[in-house]
Amino acid sequence: MHNCEIICVGTELLLGDILNTNVRFLSKELAAMGIAVLHQSVIGDNSERLANEVRTALSRSDIVITSGGLGPTPDDLTKEICCEVMGFELTVDKKVLNNIESYFRSKGISMAASNKKQAYIPAGGTVFRNDNGTAPGAAMEKDGKCLILLPGPPRELEPMFIEQAKPFLKKYSSGSIISHTVRTMGIGESALAEMVGDLLGNKNPTVAPYAKDGEVLLRITAAAVDEKSAHELCKPMIEQIRARLSSYVYGIDTDSIEQRVVELLSEKGKKIALAESCTGGYIAKRITDIPGSSSVFDCGIVSYANQTKVDILGVSPDTLEISGAVSKQTAAEMAQGARRAGNADIGIGVTGIAGPGNDSSNKPAGLIYIALADKDKTFVDKLITGRSFDREYNRYVASSYALNMARLYLEGFLGG
Amino acid sequence: MHNCEIICVGTELLLGDILNTNVRFLSKELAAMGIAVLHQSVIGDNSERLANEVRTALSRSDIVITSGGLGPTPDDLTKEICCEVMGFELTVDKKVLNNIESYFRSKGISMAASNKKQAYIPAGGTVFRNDNGTAPGAAMEKDGKCLILLPGPPRELEPMFIEQAKPFLKKYSSGSIISHTVRTMGIGESALAEMVGDLLGNKNPTVAPYAKDGEVLLRITAAAVDEKSAHELCKPMIEQIRARLSSYVYGIDTDSIEQRVVELLSEKGKKIALAESCTGGYIAKRITDIPGSSSVFDCGIVSYANQTKVDILGVSPDTLEISGAVSKQTAAEMAQGARRAGNADIGIGVTGIAGPGNDSSNKPAGLIYIALADKDKTFVDKLITGRSFDREYNRYVASSYALNMARLYLEGFLGG
Repeated sequence: MHNCEIICVGTELLLGDILNTNVRFLSKELAAMGIAVLHQSVIGDNSERLANEVRTALSRSDIVITSGGLGPTPDDLTKEICCEVMGFELTVDKKVLNNIESYFRSKGISMAASNKKQAYIPAGGTVFRNDNGTAPGAAMEKDGKCLILLPGPPRELEPMFIEQAKPFLKKYSSGSIISHTVRTMGIGESALAEMVGDLLGNKNPTVAPYAKDGEVLLRITAAAVDEKSAHELCKPMIEQIRARLSSYVYGIDTDSIEQRVVELLSEKGKKIALAESCTGGYIAKRITDIPGSSSVFDCGIVSYANQTKVDILGVSPDTLEISGAVSKQTAAEMAQGARRAGNADIGIGVTGIAGPGNDSSNKPAGLIYIALADKDKTFVDKLITGRSFDREYNRYVASSYALNMARLYLEGFLGG
Repeated sequence: MHNCEIICVGTELLLGDILNTNVRFLSKELAAMGIAVLHQSVIGDNSERLANEVRTALSRSDIVITSGGLGPTPDDLTKEICCEVMGFELTVDKKVLNNIESYFRSKGISMAASNKKQAYIPAGGTVFRNDNGTAPGAAMEKDGKCLILLPGPPRELEPMFIEQAKPFLKKYSSGSIISHTVRTMGIGESALAEMVGDLLGNKNPTVAPYAKDGEVLLRITAAAVDEKSAHELCKPMIEQIRARLSSYVYGIDTDSIEQRVVELLSEKGKKIALAESCTGGYIAKRITDIPGSSSVFDCGIVSYANQTKVDILGVSPDTLEISGAVSKQTAAEMAQGARRAGNADIGIGVTGIAGPGNDSSNKPAGLIYIALADKDKTFVDKLITGRSFDREYNRYVASSYALNMARLYLEGFLGG
């Protein structure tokens, strides 16, 4: 398997002014081609450091890809440095020069003299034309090493890679690396790792847990001669994990819990209604993120005030007086009220303290009650996030928990 | 000036599964402290490559910061490798162990044995406690070099850096680079650039426009011997920009338009209520993201279905029949209905087509009506986003537009 290294050139990356989306794009593409990316690095517009980085990269990797530093200004140095390191001459390419001139003509502006610098290409290399800008890319091969130069702007780099660099790299491709993701909720990373502990040392596919706010993902990655075989390798592993983790698994390669809930509601022809206090519309927002959610969701009430809970949801003033707004009983009545107000099959009610810090009651921030009501029964769960000062986390995790409760109900795991 | 190198550890970064937001966050913070980041790199969970990278980094940089690889699983190696390279022993820290145990207790789950690994810290180093997870961070100093270990999840890394690593690094800081952001809405990037065109070439502070979904930011950046002097350099520039852009400016260094709206409502002692159709709870979610929003926001209705618009908001069935759900008149009645249902001073109503693609009516996705009602008047605006296939963009921009309408009203710019 060939290995590859990506060097992104740009002071704006070192200053943290922009996110490095190029490296993610290239890494994902290369992984799918079966080319292993073992190093990524970022370097500024400095000739000495850049030359060192390129030399080091070529000493340990078969393929080196750079992005950025191909522009017309004097601090764009990548092409010059890379040619020096690889021992290639730079010569003017008439065709590239014509392309640059006609690019400017098409935009109705005249070409600056500095743009002529971009028409110089490595003699004996391969040129990648730039359909979305003026800097061409290039590839150089020598002594079993391959160096590829790509422009920095994503809208130039991405099509140039897909249409020209990727076909060029095909000969270095060795099979495919494919990843699948098993998504779970309701179990912590360590507890999950213990349930599948013996699988975490597996070689092909590999299995790696990865915790994200309120959920744990298991990434199954296989390498094989082609995509199909890589998928085949993943399959039995996914089935084994799914069997062990049972109801904790909410989806395989699913985008999100809300995606799964909308799918389940559609399949079963059921509608959901919401009554949100501490999540303040977050669950409604997440459900309506999904195209087509209008067929399963009619009505959500954000009842931040007690009066709204009474007026619109029909929560009893006695309940609010005796149990308080943040209580099991209030959550239950909110879920029932949402179901009624929205003429839905299922109602969800969420009430809690989002933080940061505690409120005037003696209840801690991060304490949240979540209820689900159907026509016969009401289920209520209590969630303690343990992060009293993290409002965003508490609200996100509470909304996830509520969505997962709906998922468990629709899959027949609740109160079974 | 001290220089610094950032090493992010994680196979998921090499595979392009996630965007590297940590490196951007750290680079930005370090630049503001006057610490020069000259290299960024990413390495997988591989002990040999990681050890080589750390050794190289320490040979050329004063400060090396790692992120990731501090978890409880066997492939989390960063701490072990870094201690080996720096020549520090690992010892169990009782306090850290207690913290981890109580973290699990607070969540009502028992600690897995593997989590004990996280209680080992470099003997003679400085420990950074983790308020948002179980892996502590650490700093080691030896022979004029400083190595800092931070956890991978941004939610853990960011507060740990700000509260503990940043004060620790203060002694390496030299001079300051300070940025301020003028935030505008209601004007495009090119039009704005023309209004402040002569300022964009300024040297210190620099002024750079930066377009973000539905708004344009101007970043003013000054370099000086200390923070105070850098702020002083920015001040007159900010005032000049504010004077020119007038009502387009909604805040200086404000986090968001929702932050500004909640501030204005609080100042003026007014309450807002919402009726959301295409934004589906997004506005409610954004308002309730702000701590303290409960004093200005009681009630939001997500009326995805026509029946909900009639039943809860009192929109006239005739209006829906004649003008349609996506119309100026429906938006107006929704705003009025929200105001009534929520007993509020101001009601907001939003109805439109979020996409992707057009719905069964002949109206295009990205067409959205936004209304604001007070006790006397109702204002309605029509927004055409022009991106029919971008549901998230349409919903976000519509919610921003509605929030900006509330801001303009509260500042006296609407219907003045």
